[in-house]
Amino acid sequence: MSLFEDQPETAAPAGGVVRARLTVAYDGTRFHGIAPQPGQRTVGGELTGALVRMLRAPVQLTVAGRTDAGVHAWGQVVSFDAPAPAAAEVTGLSRRLTRLLGPEIVVRDAAVAATDFDARHSATGRRYRFTVLNRAVPDPFLAATTWWVAEPLDLRAMQLACDPLMGEHDFASFCRRIDQPSSTVRVVREVGWCDLGDGLLRFEVTASSFCQQMVRSLVGTLVDVGLGRKKAGDMSWILRSKDRARAGRVAPAHGLCLWEVSY
Amino acid sequence: MSLFEDQPETAAPAGGVVRARLTVAYDGTRFHGIAPQPGQRTVGGELTGALVRMLRAPVQLTVAGRTDAGVHAWGQVVSFDAPAPAAAEVTGLSRRLTRLLGPEIVVRDAAVAATDFDARHSATGRRYRFTVLNRAVPDPFLAATTWWVAEPLDLRAMQLACDPLMGEHDFASFCRRIDQPSSTVRVVREVGWCDLGDGLLRFEVTASSFCQQMVRSLVGTLVDVGLGRKKAGDMSWILRSKDRARAGRVAPAHGLCLWEVSY
Repeated sequence: MSLFEDQPETAAPAGGVVRARLTVAYDGTRFHGIAPQPGQRTVGGELTGALVRMLRAPVQLTVAGRTDAGVHAWGQVVSFDAPAPAAAEVTGLSRRLTRLLGPEIVVRDAAVAATDFDARHSATGRRYRFTVLNRAVPDPFLAATTWWVAEPLDLRAMQLACDPLMGEHDFASFCRRIDQPSSTVRVVREVGWCDLGDGLLRFEVTASSFCQQMVRSLVGTLVDVGLGRKKAGDMSWILRSKDRARAGRVAPAHGLCLWEVSY
Repeated sequence: MSLFEDQPETAAPAGGVVRARLTVAYDGTRFHGIAPQPGQRTVGGELTGALVRMLRAPVQLTVAGRTDAGVHAWGQVVSFDAPAPAAAEVTGLSRRLTRLLGPEIVVRDAAVAATDFDARHSATGRRYRFTVLNRAVPDPFLAATTWWVAEPLDLRAMQLACDPLMGEHDFASFCRRIDQPSSTVRVVREVGWCDLGDGLLRFEVTASSFCQQMVRSLVGTLVDVGLGRKKAGDMSWILRSKDRARAGRVAPAHGLCLWEVSY
């Protein structure tokens, strides 16, 4: 059976399997994150459901970045195995999936990948964006994708506070405590704020990978610096303390977007 | 009782009433339009509810532009009578209302107006924007505010087709048929398309007032021109025919936004 067309079982190539790779954008507002969870509406659940409908076969998704409830993505990458299609059929896949999935999830690209490609383990870097709307009056059209902060922020201090984050560090202060202890050492390759004008402030951070809530925890702490509740110089010892309690609050999920995954 | 603070009844100025004017932005996605309707979630219903809660008195809203279900607004204007506040209290009103109303409705401005000000009848013009996303692949973050048209549009033809719309005409061809016949003559002062880049095409039209579904009906017909289903030259006879059946489809509500009302 072919992956990409509703062909009868008899037209199937004999047992061939391809590794497929999708680039997916989604508005995470109404999803309980990407990881499929029974009884919850998740991006992974919707994607799997649409693929199973098209493939008439079980599908096991591998995801590059596990986004939490409410977090968005522009360049999420997923991989899975599927009955071998003709290469030409792949181009039609994204269109068919986008039709099936509706406006909240868009499959931006679909391709056949190398057989050893793994959306999660092959990834060499993830880039996240977090957008703050720093205006006295909020904007209903930006409410779903930005964190509205009414009090004026000191962007220079927030930028300065990013400096100690560059490079390899134990980010335990900015990671959600989990039962199973695992390494919280990560390598930050790029980090900083950008003033988009009109009160829109964008935080962008690239790392090998991130621990849970790390970007939102960094942004929450940096916004505390911007508000004068913490000093730019505090960032360094908060990082060194490896103590979750030293960091600021966790910024809300809806300002965060998984922007790009590199391989 | 004061309009703008939760003061006890005894602190009320003796029977004074002011005409208040609000400028309101809203994401219309989850509303059944602006006009209050029993059993439906409407922008007017939410606004009235919040005002009644603040004023502890009945409130009768007058609205500049009656937006349909799903239609957005950036510069909607409403007026109502309220117990006379100190002028200084007015500035706090928008902040309090915005807090009460949540992210979908934002009161951008609140002011005391002249006693004969009427949001609807004092208005001299309304400006609407309609945004089309003309790209092969849709965008989940623009899904709520743009009409996604995948096939390439001929913007030049669409612009040309706007020419006959300028000035005073009977727009019966572009007005929703209603039981009570009323005049469908309107004066269009400005009309045209603007290429915002990256596939975003914006239609902007200013008129004294509009009949129901007029902008969406114009856009639907203009997009038919852009797709080659109608010719730019057809616009003139469609207008002159005064026949609803001659016009194209009605563009979807979610691409439309009441941008500005002038007085």
